[in-house]
Amino acid sequence: MRIQREGETYEGGLMPRSESGDDLHIVIKLGSGYNIGVKITPTTKVAKIGSGAKPSFIAPERPAGKSGLERVDIISTGGTIASRVDYRTGAVQPALSADDLYSAVPALSEIADIRAHILYSELSENMTPKHWVGMAGKIQEVVKSGTHGVVICHGTDTMAYTSAALSFMLRNLPIPVILVGSQRSSDRPSSDAATNLLGAVAISSKAPFAEVAVAMHDGPSDKTITVHRGTKVRKCHTSGRYAFKSINSPPLAKYDLEKSYLEIVDSNFHGRDPKRSLETKTNFNEKVLLTKFYPGMSSSIFEWAIKEGYSGMVVEGTGLGHVSIRLRDSIKKAIETGMLVGMTSQCLWGRVNMNVYSTGRDLLAIGVIPLEDMLPETALVKVMWALGQTKEPEQAKKLLLTNVAGEISQRTTLDD
Amino acid sequence: MRIQREGETYEGGLMPRSESGDDLHIVIKLGSGYNIGVKITPTTKVAKIGSGAKPSFIAPERPAGKSGLERVDIISTGGTIASRVDYRTGAVQPALSADDLYSAVPALSEIADIRAHILYSELSENMTPKHWVGMAGKIQEVVKSGTHGVVICHGTDTMAYTSAALSFMLRNLPIPVILVGSQRSSDRPSSDAATNLLGAVAISSKAPFAEVAVAMHDGPSDKTITVHRGTKVRKCHTSGRYAFKSINSPPLAKYDLEKSYLEIVDSNFHGRDPKRSLETKTNFNEKVLLTKFYPGMSSSIFEWAIKEGYSGMVVEGTGLGHVSIRLRDSIKKAIETGMLVGMTSQCLWGRVNMNVYSTGRDLLAIGVIPLEDMLPETALVKVMWALGQTKEPEQAKKLLLTNVAGEISQRTTLDD
Repeated sequence: MRIQREGETYEGGLMPRSESGDDLHIVIKLGSGYNIGVKITPTTKVAKIGSGAKPSFIAPERPAGKSGLERVDIISTGGTIASRVDYRTGAVQPALSADDLYSAVPALSEIADIRAHILYSELSENMTPKHWVGMAGKIQEVVKSGTHGVVICHGTDTMAYTSAALSFMLRNLPIPVILVGSQRSSDRPSSDAATNLLGAVAISSKAPFAEVAVAMHDGPSDKTITVHRGTKVRKCHTSGRYAFKSINSPPLAKYDLEKSYLEIVDSNFHGRDPKRSLETKTNFNEKVLLTKFYPGMSSSIFEWAIKEGYSGMVVEGTGLGHVSIRLRDSIKKAIETGMLVGMTSQCLWGRVNMNVYSTGRDLLAIGVIPLEDMLPETALVKVMWALGQTKEPEQAKKLLLTNVAGEISQRTTLDD
Repeated sequence: MRIQREGETYEGGLMPRSESGDDLHIVIKLGSGYNIGVKITPTTKVAKIGSGAKPSFIAPERPAGKSGLERVDIISTGGTIASRVDYRTGAVQPALSADDLYSAVPALSEIADIRAHILYSELSENMTPKHWVGMAGKIQEVVKSGTHGVVICHGTDTMAYTSAALSFMLRNLPIPVILVGSQRSSDRPSSDAATNLLGAVAISSKAPFAEVAVAMHDGPSDKTITVHRGTKVRKCHTSGRYAFKSINSPPLAKYDLEKSYLEIVDSNFHGRDPKRSLETKTNFNEKVLLTKFYPGMSSSIFEWAIKEGYSGMVVEGTGLGHVSIRLRDSIKKAIETGMLVGMTSQCLWGRVNMNVYSTGRDLLAIGVIPLEDMLPETALVKVMWALGQTKEPEQAKKLLLTNVAGEISQRTTLDD
């Protein structure tokens, strides 16, 4: 196509409109390989100047399998990383077959024997606890069939919630389960989709640990992928490639893509052992509320939560785990009706300590549970999970204060 | 006192029990100057071994005023930094007179002519918009009486909410207003109370900018105080000395305590001009809700907010500003009843961009307001303030999208 607008001329091959496009723009691929969207105004001239080859998709011959390559199962659930592949094949719906993957990232065939599964095609903001349970079921299936590592392709928005949920559900895990996503879609030169996926597959096949983890780019370079423990990770930037950070804990490991070298950062991990038999504990109680305290917050939200029959609540308090004294009576009432109320900090970094000031001690006295250095998001998932494991508030409380999947650090390093 | 317990002997002067103490511990000051709390068990022996001098308080002669020293007004509202002084004088209630200050931090008399005011003695988690308004009134008073700089001593828990509120209320500010707090109380060798206060006073008297800012330690050393713009700062650690960070913006300045040197980091500031006449815009609408989206969140909270008559809501969405599609209809209903709904990101770093994915565009289409790179906490305060300035939703929306006090950055640097 040739597009002329405001004195500028653009020539390139017409591209399928992406999901994020609208009907006011045409997307063309320039000779440089870069895609641009051009806004069509009443004065814009659009002309067909030739017939290019249709976007074609020729799968390279699937390697017979290098000897010694371990089997890795990739389970796609949606998000930018999965739509990358459909973009290349011209499809609008996310799709991820093993052949697609080998074509998109040929280097994958050098590092593992890939089996690919499409479980969901969901944007991650639409994920619910039911999707978490579905993922656990699929993981159980591929683990039983003898895979060496599992990679979950997932949208980045709620990836950390899912990684926490899988961390709690998958007990006695024999192999690593690595979640991976992409912060930049593949039509941008800075896309991290291919390298993140390569890294995740390598890590799931090589790692000596059998934990749920998130593997994402660490910085603007293409060299390193950081592996974050599933309960200690958070998306800390709306758009940056290095949005994912381990909070209140070192990362588990770092993977050097150039040297294919996995450096273990935290040697205190749950080790890989293929003989172990995976158990899944998949009950969640979704009647759990996450609330963030702020000046001027009304106590009526607690009254409402009682009426709505919420079983649990995670409060993001200020500082060491505080809320205004004006809320205390309503929180007390909620606890008296049997609601489990856990305290985390909106600071995110550091540990709650409710013994330092009278505010904290008063909250402890009415039964608020101090959730140590757990991230609020992880705490929310854990309360849902704990209340799915037992209906006894005391047992649930005990479970909350037990380190189930690395969510509670022994101590917090101030320099983190 | 001599205390003997489990083979250990401790000797020191008996100290008044702090607010955070309990009746199972005795606090003594060791010869080293360090205070320890000893738990009293049935086998503990406690003996009076002498009569030390009572904790005495002798104010050094108040300096007549070095020539050329500018007047700085310190307004105390409570928190650890204010209770530091009462600790030295033996009082349990926070108190902060100019004499107390000169005694506690003699170096203050070298840098400014101090006037001290006790406005509140509140733990900062108990602050409300009414306290913010009270602070604005007191600041107006001391500015009118001709001071050169204002320092607000404040608890750290909600300091960033207060600094945002003051940033919006204080229009046409002629001089700097510096909030300061302390993360460590003064009986710990690592206390930052004295150096933070010294820094804040120096900054308020020297700074070429007339903005509301937070001055707090930058790192574990005692050398540097960082000055954060009041709308771009956040407490990011429950207990660390360097908890305060500028988010999505460079800090305004850094103050070197050893060299008494103020380095301007962001030269794009509102300059000091004592001839300017301060206006205060102190109306807040407190019927504003802050909600954080999470997987499994029920839409019933929006229905409840409509029934409760909330005028505004700030949503902490995921990623670029998303929530589950399951919530869209309820949010639409809230907006149709006249509620102002603004979108921020729980990532904290980065900017919302609701044009990238269909989820964001759908939310824009129903009238959700994308609040750029505003922190959720700043956005909450701004919605309260905007709805206090006008009852017209369209005007309030316009105000929300206007950069009033540096809360919206022109662009976000990914490396922040």
